[in-house]
Amino acid sequence: MKLFNKAVIIGTGLIGASLGLDLKKRHLVSQITGLSRHQSNARLAKKSGAIDYVASSLDAVNDADLVILATPVNSILEIAFKIAGKIKKECIVIDVGSTKQQIVSKINRVIPNFVGCHPLSGSEKRGVANLAAGIFNNSICIITPTVKTDKKVLSKVSLLWRKLGSKIIILSPEKHDRILAFTSHLPHAVAFSLIGSVPDKFLSLSSGGLKDTTRISASDANLWSEVFLSNRRNILTCLLAFQTRLSVLKLALERKNKKLLMKILSAANKKREKLG
Amino acid sequence: MKLFNKAVIIGTGLIGASLGLDLKKRHLVSQITGLSRHQSNARLAKKSGAIDYVASSLDAVNDADLVILATPVNSILEIAFKIAGKIKKECIVIDVGSTKQQIVSKINRVIPNFVGCHPLSGSEKRGVANLAAGIFNNSICIITPTVKTDKKVLSKVSLLWRKLGSKIIILSPEKHDRILAFTSHLPHAVAFSLIGSVPDKFLSLSSGGLKDTTRISASDANLWSEVFLSNRRNILTCLLAFQTRLSVLKLALERKNKKLLMKILSAANKKREKLG
Repeated sequence: MKLFNKAVIIGTGLIGASLGLDLKKRHLVSQITGLSRHQSNARLAKKSGAIDYVASSLDAVNDADLVILATPVNSILEIAFKIAGKIKKECIVIDVGSTKQQIVSKINRVIPNFVGCHPLSGSEKRGVANLAAGIFNNSICIITPTVKTDKKVLSKVSLLWRKLGSKIIILSPEKHDRILAFTSHLPHAVAFSLIGSVPDKFLSLSSGGLKDTTRISASDANLWSEVFLSNRRNILTCLLAFQTRLSVLKLALERKNKKLLMKILSAANKKREKLG
Repeated sequence: MKLFNKAVIIGTGLIGASLGLDLKKRHLVSQITGLSRHQSNARLAKKSGAIDYVASSLDAVNDADLVILATPVNSILEIAFKIAGKIKKECIVIDVGSTKQQIVSKINRVIPNFVGCHPLSGSEKRGVANLAAGIFNNSICIITPTVKTDKKVLSKVSLLWRKLGSKIIILSPEKHDRILAFTSHLPHAVAFSLIGSVPDKFLSLSSGGLKDTTRISASDANLWSEVFLSNRRNILTCLLAFQTRLSVLKLALERKNKKLLMKILSAANKKREKLG
């Protein structure tokens, strides 16, 4: 079932290109045009079957029914402002960025039919070379409408993600950013700091623990600097909560308090079990 | 090639039982007796083919040629003192604990033929139910002799691990503990604290990042409390180094300093790449 006629994906990286692949495989759009800052990426996306056409300018959105903004957080805003005057009135615009409050409030001023989306399908990998089919299937997609969001537009966007196999969670942009600060942005901040504190010469004596704990510290520096900056207040709150926890563990260790250590570690065990 | 006649494994958990399995598969010992605090574990290890006999008391070490201490860190010391008066003079004793300084210095006083070993093959799983063949193959095993260690004993222990497929690294117990504090104990402390700081109600909105970063927070609370306590000075040093890194990242965020954020994240990217 075609949900949209012409779709344009701006940013044919891992998420953008994988989205194109699934939209085509599931016949949800009639045709997809892709754009990338580096045209070679868009060409590779076309070669991989993720898009039908490569566009060279943002004018490609002129007759689009759906525009997907799949660039890093700061470019999402920049591009949204540029395309606001070009798109048709009824064109639906979505993004796939990791933070929502700033993006949604700023873009909704210029594009009423914009709906913020955040598929929890990213990884530390990036780029069209890492595209993969089916990454949205059985995955969570958070959609962040506002009170002003048109109900029909929201249900069409929800349907799109459901057809891709995603489980939809509706949250306000504010709540999204408060929660994801804990479940995604904090772990990244921790992983970047952890690998930073291990002396280079010791890295060869690591087991699986350090590797897992720091896997996401391979995530793109520019993309994540922007995520951090666009959700800084929430992340600072999380960092404080984490620092407090760490201080308690440190205190238990300083005082050789095994009872307290056991309490901290057992509680962590129980909570980790819920994560599956 | 049989390296030892009678071997006794004390502690038939994941590492102890997996070791039994490989020692038998590679015909490195003639027979293996297993002991566990819970006899049902030793019986399960026998059923799984990891040991030949289940012993009910430490007297089983009387005629052993090799004793492997594979219990949590604090029990290793306790058991070593108990068997010191029971073993033959030429019996070689090794352990597989995560910290070495305390264990090696204390045990060497009562068992001269004791050699500390640390195969980097553990995981957050535990128990004989999770035993697996081949986990020592292509894995690092750190051996921590002292100046007093008999050369022949050391080469026999090294040969044993090499025959299991491990890559041997020789370190002093002190250096082992200083390095592993960074590459293993610190990541555990961080993971326990990280999962502790995420509110329960947010856990359902986690992606792969939080899961990976906190995987090792499922590690056994008692075992890790003991690891922390037995290497506390080194771990406290690491925690301080980590806290400093985290504070710098926090400062960059507070000051909206993208240049500093990029510097921290790019350096993390580069270092993580070395980890493979």
